[in-house]
Amino acid sequence: MNNLGEKNNFHMTPDEFRRFGREMVDWIADYYEDIEQFPVLSQVQPGEIRARLPAAPPQNGESFDEIIADIEKLILPGITHWQSPNFFAFFPANASGPSILAELLSAGLGVQGMSWVTSPACTELETHVLDWLAEMLGLPEKFMSNTKGGGVIQDTASNATLSALLAARERSTNFSSNENGIENKLIVYASTQTHSSIDKAVKIAGMGKNNLRLIDVDEQFSMRPELLSRQIEADREAGLIPSFVCATVGTTSSNAIDPVREIGEICVEEGLWLHVDAAMSGTAALVPEFRYINDGLEFADSYCFNPHKWMFTNFDCDCFYVADRASLIKTFSVLPEYLRNKATESGAVIDYRDWHIQLGRRFRSLKLWFVIRYYGVEGLRHHIRQHVELAQQFAEWVDKDPNFQLAVSPPLNLVCFRHTGGDEVNQQLLDSLNQSGKMYLTHTNLDEHFTLRMCVGQTYTEEKHVKQAWDLLQTTAENIL
Amino acid sequence: MNNLGEKNNFHMTPDEFRRFGREMVDWIADYYEDIEQFPVLSQVQPGEIRARLPAAPPQNGESFDEIIADIEKLILPGITHWQSPNFFAFFPANASGPSILAELLSAGLGVQGMSWVTSPACTELETHVLDWLAEMLGLPEKFMSNTKGGGVIQDTASNATLSALLAARERSTNFSSNENGIENKLIVYASTQTHSSIDKAVKIAGMGKNNLRLIDVDEQFSMRPELLSRQIEADREAGLIPSFVCATVGTTSSNAIDPVREIGEICVEEGLWLHVDAAMSGTAALVPEFRYINDGLEFADSYCFNPHKWMFTNFDCDCFYVADRASLIKTFSVLPEYLRNKATESGAVIDYRDWHIQLGRRFRSLKLWFVIRYYGVEGLRHHIRQHVELAQQFAEWVDKDPNFQLAVSPPLNLVCFRHTGGDEVNQQLLDSLNQSGKMYLTHTNLDEHFTLRMCVGQTYTEEKHVKQAWDLLQTTAENIL
Repeated sequence: MNNLGEKNNFHMTPDEFRRFGREMVDWIADYYEDIEQFPVLSQVQPGEIRARLPAAPPQNGESFDEIIADIEKLILPGITHWQSPNFFAFFPANASGPSILAELLSAGLGVQGMSWVTSPACTELETHVLDWLAEMLGLPEKFMSNTKGGGVIQDTASNATLSALLAARERSTNFSSNENGIENKLIVYASTQTHSSIDKAVKIAGMGKNNLRLIDVDEQFSMRPELLSRQIEADREAGLIPSFVCATVGTTSSNAIDPVREIGEICVEEGLWLHVDAAMSGTAALVPEFRYINDGLEFADSYCFNPHKWMFTNFDCDCFYVADRASLIKTFSVLPEYLRNKATESGAVIDYRDWHIQLGRRFRSLKLWFVIRYYGVEGLRHHIRQHVELAQQFAEWVDKDPNFQLAVSPPLNLVCFRHTGGDEVNQQLLDSLNQSGKMYLTHTNLDEHFTLRMCVGQTYTEEKHVKQAWDLLQTTAENIL
Repeated sequence: MNNLGEKNNFHMTPDEFRRFGREMVDWIADYYEDIEQFPVLSQVQPGEIRARLPAAPPQNGESFDEIIADIEKLILPGITHWQSPNFFAFFPANASGPSILAELLSAGLGVQGMSWVTSPACTELETHVLDWLAEMLGLPEKFMSNTKGGGVIQDTASNATLSALLAARERSTNFSSNENGIENKLIVYASTQTHSSIDKAVKIAGMGKNNLRLIDVDEQFSMRPELLSRQIEADREAGLIPSFVCATVGTTSSNAIDPVREIGEICVEEGLWLHVDAAMSGTAALVPEFRYINDGLEFADSYCFNPHKWMFTNFDCDCFYVADRASLIKTFSVLPEYLRNKATESGAVIDYRDWHIQLGRRFRSLKLWFVIRYYGVEGLRHHIRQHVELAQQFAEWVDKDPNFQLAVSPPLNLVCFRHTGGDEVNQQLLDSLNQSGKMYLTHTNLDEHFTLRMCVGQTYTEEKHVKQAWDLLQTTAENIL
């Protein structure tokens, strides 16, 4: 009937787990030792990976050694190496040893943190490290768990932003949209440079993309608060209901920082929900000299940043803070009989399932706990400082080379620049660099020009990698022209 | 200034990763060997775990050995052991060796699968194993990637259901809600037994809880299709717009299976989107004799099940299939300049970011790939069969004991039952069992009675554990009375 062995089951025994686990750990260590040998951007064609995989699933189990061998053979060619020190594309999703091992532990414990009772440590460690982080970043007191506010780990900034938007939608309609659906025209504001997740969130929330106002920016690509004010006024005059503003600290396109203080003052006066999206750049506030980016945060109703981008914590891990958790919980809470328990009913505990869309949740705070403890605050600061220094060094090289120009002065670790040869040359340069496999860059569009983006934030990027990248850029440009 | 050692950085070296990784693997293996020694349900009081943690984050890094030592000391007492073979609560979130190691690999590779180009293997392996699974479960052809439909991994069934609902909302309004916000009264249908995530989804989508119709069930707690028909008709007569039906295969409360075929025929006739939520029980269709649960699925517009519940794949991993991917993509798609690339523009690839709310995504298909290959189809079938057999055995014991009664005939691996002594005795019985630490059960409410739920689905549960549980139930009940 089946091919059961002596074990009488098909599970991996603890001893086998020791052996295969060690093989997997060694495989990963080897991978990091060899990572610079692979082309950073995968060079496969569409369909190439699938074509190598067997069409049908195996009827009978295979050995773990076969599976491990196939990673190198079948999977690696299709990997774009986000952990390579030569990865300068998008924003990073940097990881680290302690974080990877914490993810392993989280998977090993395999607990579900939907309610406090389903694993108290999962909830309490999360609350604790989010308070640690609020302190480490100098966030306003009102985001700490001993106030009316508090923090929660979300998977992504997309979901954090959506959660904030939903809570704002409910607050603006006296929590009636949850009950009756949307009947009013609620208006949402963000800058033209805001992340695409705000578009997506406005659509999901049923508020309608046409009710999203994209406010123009200044020459630094930061939102112009006077235009925000004017738009709010115009919308009120038209009988609409201004509801929510998303300000960004470190836009994806160019790392622009919106003037949170001025925007916040407007929001307070107008009674709008202010969400601050610091997904990428929030981590910089670990360093005292960069903490100015938090200026005005005391006016925010919610805030998020992604340790899974720049804080050595592998994806997913977004930290989302609210000043008034009741709005959030009221938006999301459902309590069917099968989730009822005494701890929940006592009111003495947090049930994080009411803080986001999902019900189930993994033990992600272990990652933050491991990373913060292993690096210490000073260790984290050291590396963030270094990334910013390297990016600024790169910007200086660009600025001094007559063939290149900065598109905008880089505030932190993202450099937006162009070859002076025009859009087509820059597109060719990008393609050529990425096809070389030696580095991976991406692009954006600023002032109607194709613009290269060089982000220094990968865990293992050192000065030599940035220097190599610059040399390669120069020689590649020469070859194109 | 800082305490940099000889390494000139604070990172874990590959050699340290080998050593600490091995320690972590061994820790997990030890944990599984000892797991039955811990109380299944954590016995700590609210605040107890936090009270042991240092108030301030460490300024300087600590050794990994200290961190590992603290897991046992600080974290384990606050763990409810979801991986214990004596865990019979809620639905399981079962894990396995190959799945845990795949999660480790996913964290180690640390790639972002938001677009095909950001790691082609992440997208293509996902498409491939989802096709494997569709075949393994006997799902309709229209959910395969070579049709207009296809599958995607979502984190949870909550998000899968929400995604389906959003696509339905857009289809019902000719994709105008995305643009203009919701202007019509769209009506959503589910049974009174449907999972709480549908309430949450209806609220999030801005459709309004008052537009959710909970259709009554029969004595097996399955939706009554004739009442669904009648309600749709009444809503149309009232000028409302019926939009979406969620049918459940294996409700959380009692594992009831809605008559998907009859419901599906109504949906086709009425032009409603049918989503089938088989989060828990979908896995059973791996076994030919349980495949009847898929009857009528050919009428579904979307379908989801959770390998992270019962298919030995650690959380999170929900498989979500749609029959018409265009509706889904049209609902979620956004394409800012910084995500543009040639592969996307060629139309030859899938960009899974357009299939769900989040932008970023981890390489979760590795988990399914490892699990399916390690167990093989026959290995998975063996264990699913065994869980169902054990649950049916338990049900027989309950049924034969005059002090206990079945609340409903158990279709698969969830047994709903009561002591005949009434609600209070059952509540006491539950508390007493859970406080014993020897097993963990949860409850529901069926026919206005407090009802115990015993779900057999944990990876390592064997006959002896179910027998022990039954013995303990009997003796505990005797002691209470």
